[in-house]
Amino acid sequence: MNNRLRVAVIGAGYWGPNLARNFRSSRDWELAAIVDLDRARAEKVADSVGGASVLTDIDDALNDAGIDAVAIATPARTHHPLVMRALRAGKHVVVEKPLADSSEHAREMVDEAQRRGLVLMTDHTYCYTPAVQKIRELVADGSLGDILFIDSTRINLGLVQPDVDVFWDLAPHDLSIIDFVLPGGLAPRSVAAYGADPIGAGKSCVGYLMMPLANGGMAHVHVNWMSPTKIRQMVVGGTRRTLVWDDLNPQQRVSVYDRGVDLLRQTGFATDRREATVSYRLGDTWSPALAEREPLGAMVEEFAGAITERRAARTDGYAGLRVLDVLESASRSLAETGAFAAARIPVTA
Amino acid sequence: MNNRLRVAVIGAGYWGPNLARNFRSSRDWELAAIVDLDRARAEKVADSVGGASVLTDIDDALNDAGIDAVAIATPARTHHPLVMRALRAGKHVVVEKPLADSSEHAREMVDEAQRRGLVLMTDHTYCYTPAVQKIRELVADGSLGDILFIDSTRINLGLVQPDVDVFWDLAPHDLSIIDFVLPGGLAPRSVAAYGADPIGAGKSCVGYLMMPLANGGMAHVHVNWMSPTKIRQMVVGGTRRTLVWDDLNPQQRVSVYDRGVDLLRQTGFATDRREATVSYRLGDTWSPALAEREPLGAMVEEFAGAITERRAARTDGYAGLRVLDVLESASRSLAETGAFAAARIPVTA
Amino acid sequence: MNNRLRVAVIGAGYWGPNLARNFRSSRDWELAAIVDLDRARAEKVADSVGGASVLTDIDDALNDAGIDAVAIATPARTHHPLVMRALRAGKHVVVEKPLADSSEHAREMVDEAQRRGLVLMTDHTYCYTPAVQKIRELVADGSLGDILFIDSTRINLGLVQPDVDVFWDLAPHDLSIIDFVLPGGLAPRSVAAYGADPIGAGKSCVGYLMMPLANGGMAHVHVNWMSPTKIRQMVVGGTRRTLVWDDLNPQQRVSVYDRGVDLLRQTGFATDRREATVSYRLGDTWSPALAEREPLGAMVEEFAGAITERRAARTDGYAGLRVLDVLESASRSLAETGAFAAARIPVTA
Amino acid sequence: MNNRLRVAVIGAGYWGPNLARNFRSSRDWELAAIVDLDRARAEKVADSVGGASVLTDIDDALNDAGIDAVAIATPARTHHPLVMRALRAGKHVVVEKPLADSSEHAREMVDEAQRRGLVLMTDHTYCYTPAVQKIRELVADGSLGDILFIDSTRINLGLVQPDVDVFWDLAPHDLSIIDFVLPGGLAPRSVAAYGADPIGAGKSCVGYLMMPLANGGMAHVHVNWMSPTKIRQMVVGGTRRTLVWDDLNPQQRVSVYDRGVDLLRQTGFATDRREATVSYRLGDTWSPALAEREPLGAMVEEFAGAITERRAARTDGYAGLRVLDVLESASRSLAETGAFAAARIPVTA
Repeated sequence: MNNRLRVAVIGAGYWGPNLARNFRSSRDWELAAIVDLDRARAEKVADSVGGASVLTDIDDALNDAGIDAVAIATPARTHHPLVMRALRAGKHVVVEKPLADSSEHAREMVDEAQRRGLVLMTDHTYCYTPAVQKIRELVADGSLGDILFIDSTRINLGLVQPDVDVFWDLAPHDLSIIDFVLPGGLAPRSVAAYGADPIGAGKSCVGYLMMPLANGGMAHVHVNWMSPTKIRQMVVGGTRRTLVWDDLNPQQRVSVYDRGVDLLRQTGFATDRREATVSYRLGDTWSPALAEREPLGAMVEEFAGAITERRAARTDGYAGLRVLDVLESASRSLAETGAFAAARIPVTA
Repeated sequence: MNNRLRVAVIGAGYWGPNLARNFRSSRDWELAAIVDLDRARAEKVADSVGGASVLTDIDDALNDAGIDAVAIATPARTHHPLVMRALRAGKHVVVEKPLADSSEHAREMVDEAQRRGLVLMTDHTYCYTPAVQKIRELVADGSLGDILFIDSTRINLGLVQPDVDVFWDLAPHDLSIIDFVLPGGLAPRSVAAYGADPIGAGKSCVGYLMMPLANGGMAHVHVNWMSPTKIRQMVVGGTRRTLVWDDLNPQQRVSVYDRGVDLLRQTGFATDRREATVSYRLGDTWSPALAEREPLGAMVEEFAGAITERRAARTDGYAGLRVLDVLESASRSLAETGAFAAARIPVTA
Repeated sequence: MNNRLRVAVIGAGYWGPNLARNFRSSRDWELAAIVDLDRARAEKVADSVGGASVLTDIDDALNDAGIDAVAIATPARTHHPLVMRALRAGKHVVVEKPLADSSEHAREMVDEAQRRGLVLMTDHTYCYTPAVQKIRELVADGSLGDILFIDSTRINLGLVQPDVDVFWDLAPHDLSIIDFVLPGGLAPRSVAAYGADPIGAGKSCVGYLMMPLANGGMAHVHVNWMSPTKIRQMVVGGTRRTLVWDDLNPQQRVSVYDRGVDLLRQTGFATDRREATVSYRLGDTWSPALAEREPLGAMVEEFAGAITERRAARTDGYAGLRVLDVLESASRSLAETGAFAAARIPVTA
Repeated sequence: MNNRLRVAVIGAGYWGPNLARNFRSSRDWELAAIVDLDRARAEKVADSVGGASVLTDIDDALNDAGIDAVAIATPARTHHPLVMRALRAGKHVVVEKPLADSSEHAREMVDEAQRRGLVLMTDHTYCYTPAVQKIRELVADGSLGDILFIDSTRINLGLVQPDVDVFWDLAPHDLSIIDFVLPGGLAPRSVAAYGADPIGAGKSCVGYLMMPLANGGMAHVHVNWMSPTKIRQMVVGGTRRTLVWDDLNPQQRVSVYDRGVDLLRQTGFATDRREATVSYRLGDTWSPALAEREPLGAMVEEFAGAITERRAARTDGYAGLRVLDVLESASRSLAETGAFAAARIPVTA
């Protein structure tokens, strides 16, 4: 028990209870406190996880030398001030997505953590699902070869959100996942967004994101609040194999196809008949068994690992920043009526 | 027998035999001749349909006053000269797609037919499938309401074509269908194309087409030669209902969902809570039974109908021209590295 | 509040908390007490639903004149004595399935309730799902016509149970549903069971139930603990339409096919060519929207309705008895190496 | 060309042209003649395959010493006399299924071929599809382990046949496949059949076949003319892996699941907690790429191989006989109102 890290969860709203429950059941963590301005709300969360200290003043947590880390689950606009305070108090921080309300704020947070040698992690929960973990692994170990294209679809009937368009509502999931599985993270050469608002909602309800990749490949995201059928599918095409992730097929979420188009590159002599060198592979399909594990459990474990091993978390602050940067580029592209907007993509430290 | 129209099929290659067979089995048509420079090839087609006259000189058909119409199934680059000769000889003409090798040529053909009061039809075969006929009918009778968005996906492992990219190879199907089902035809405000050539084939192997529609809606086409899974799906979202066409599900190709997002427009007074006026419909799904009929049979019937009723064919020359115009706009957009290209869309006569 | 019925939940194990929660949130019920020999366990349940009286002696509930009904959620072997005591104390009773540990016991319970004019209800929860409610409605209103055959499949990798075979583990779901949707309830002319124990578990792990129906039709149930793929599907074939319920397809659970085989019955004269009078219908498919509602909520509402309207519950004691009778017939059939066992089916009161 | 075997196809009706075409395009065979009482019909078939001798008297083929083999594609009732004549004339014979109109006749044919050392083959075409070839291979090489159960479903809206019930119409496919993939062939300990005739067609329109296997396992076949949805699926459960063949999913026809229920057999000491020794495997799924090949092409190649290598064909006369024997047992079982009928299964030579 002595060796456990101690964490305070800041914010007892929608996401806070999930964080509290997972910290509580982790072998790496001791849940030190639940912090909320509303004591009753904090107490309810504490009760639901079998008891925990309750605080209404965040400074009581930040000034407590026995607390190693804080988990921020407050509204997005408060992330920047709270995280800056926590970092300055020497705490490691994990933040519910989005990392901040602007990439400028996010960059300050990332810089501050870097300067102080503290872990700043973005809670991109989806990245800790067994399916996405497996996809990252298959990309990393070369099973897919070089990544040629990624096509992600996330469509459904969705409530039109009051404050954000369909890109900001749904695409963060796709973008954080693409960032997680690509070896160099999400670093498109540019970002173009096309949106449609056919019902006059005052914002995009149907959206397409085009992100040319460095190697000539393409990442594409389709998000849609107006589809009568629900689709959550991502295709990751590689030089060796192609992977399809169908999140709505619990019996076969991840399929790896040993199929593809090969371009046999001529080395000895020139040829006019380039097309003659293209061929198919029609090999087996393979669907790996996936572990059953709650993603947030894996997330808090990774947070502990990053702290104790003094390394960046897998979904660190830079990951959160890259996602914000693409979303802001998409908004600029959209504002220019779909014109191509050059993304100012940060480089991972 | 006397009242039947008489047709000559020009070209005995890949598509000619299919045309000949369908003209032969139609009650509207008499198959007057098969024309090909290669007599043996023409004779083989004539035999396969139970006998027909064989000609090697197209002028023998064009000068035959007993022949009402010709069906052109020759390479695309020959369409313009052959169609112009046939129209000038007073023949009605149906042309295998693409209508011509350029929109400029297509426009001349359309104008010539218009001037002479002759039927010029594009053989957009897919439009005559029972599924697409039903979709057109449901749009036309108001079952879907106003069209808000169309999303079409046509992906598979496909042979990299020597002479065309993935847009010109696959998108004509999607574009001709969208043109067919939209009340005013395919008339995007603009066209943007994004392509990827991740294998170094020298042309786009993965392609996305963005086509904002006049009413604020969007048509989007995804074509892909590199997908290990085959998808042929079109979603047509309307104000009243949304339709999904899954061409690979023979048991339920067309589904009509009485589901959607409604925006209740305020008329009496202003409101700050715009989002409060958005609501869902979650009604029944309905899948119409589709007739079983060979599309080409319906196509030749439509050709006869247009001629005898002195009206434009459903897939007339303008339809072929609109499709060519979008494809050319896409190529220009692509050449400008994905920049937005204004389409010069012709107006239907 | 005064008009609410008052209920005590007996048993605070696996199912009791679900019952308690649903009685608590119902407008028809007041949750009067949680009863369990283990006070701590009862208190935990009471806390989880926001507080309720806790009793450790069932007689305290049965002797309380202010309590109208009890819900029994104790092990099956205790159902008979507890229910008999409750009925003799004048309480209405709902019992977790199976109604009893034998049809003989079940019959005594049914007779006792009948004699005293009390409601005895079996908690066949599945019957209160929106899908099954809809199926019952479509059968009852004649949409399907007369029922010709029912084929139910419920297969998956399942834990081999220590005390029951695959029939007693899984088939009660199918049988209670078939009983619920058939107008006259589950009344097969006979029951034949075939089981296989290919892994030497000492009991059937794969099972088939054949139940010829009175009208020449057939009900068939396939249950299987050893299938690598999960299937939960029921086909209900009728003279007018056929319904398919696929419980693992949340986007289209219930489909009604206006397709079938018709036998045109000759009335005026004899014919040798009987087959000539068979024809197809290939009409539309229709998938009704289903309400979203927790089944147990609908179950406790039905329990209240039966009491206040002084009528039998939809899943009354006879329903529980009929299911037990078929299961016992199946066991006898199995014991005779698959020989046909005549079912002794009780008649609904 | 000299080394090719020479074959005559007897019967120019429905199946004869398919046989003729495949013999014609085979490297192993020379198509010597088409035989039919109706010369015009025979000539039409000969033309359709690019020409072949036409005979109207079968004796002209049987007396021709240059003809090695005959392929019989005539009505089932004529198989016995024609095959017996062909065998007595020293010809190898392949027969369209069913092998004969009774198992008694089939047995005579098998015995005659055996006595004369000639190949007698049943054209169980389905066994030569790439999917079934792969299943046989995976069973034979031990990939699935011992076979525990087989569950086959073949249902659809089907025309009620004038002369046969649903068992004789559809089950021969399932039975010939099961016979082909099981190492010892189809040798059930017994056969029980249950049929339903809910529309008064005078014969079973819905049918179930139960076939307990020697090792405690079970084969089950469900055939149905009245299903609005088409299903063609076979599950083959083994001790090591389980295979699912979904013939209507061209993208993944065969899936091999490394999942199952294991019973850890205790060897050292007795145990009361038998259930504790049951466990799951939840491993990967694998879908082998299947060759694309016309089944009849593989069938005529096997026929040639059996003749030249002087061995039994994979689907020999005994296979045809075993299928007939099960069908006759099913009919007897059905006649006894579903009572268990002992199958008289022949032993393979």
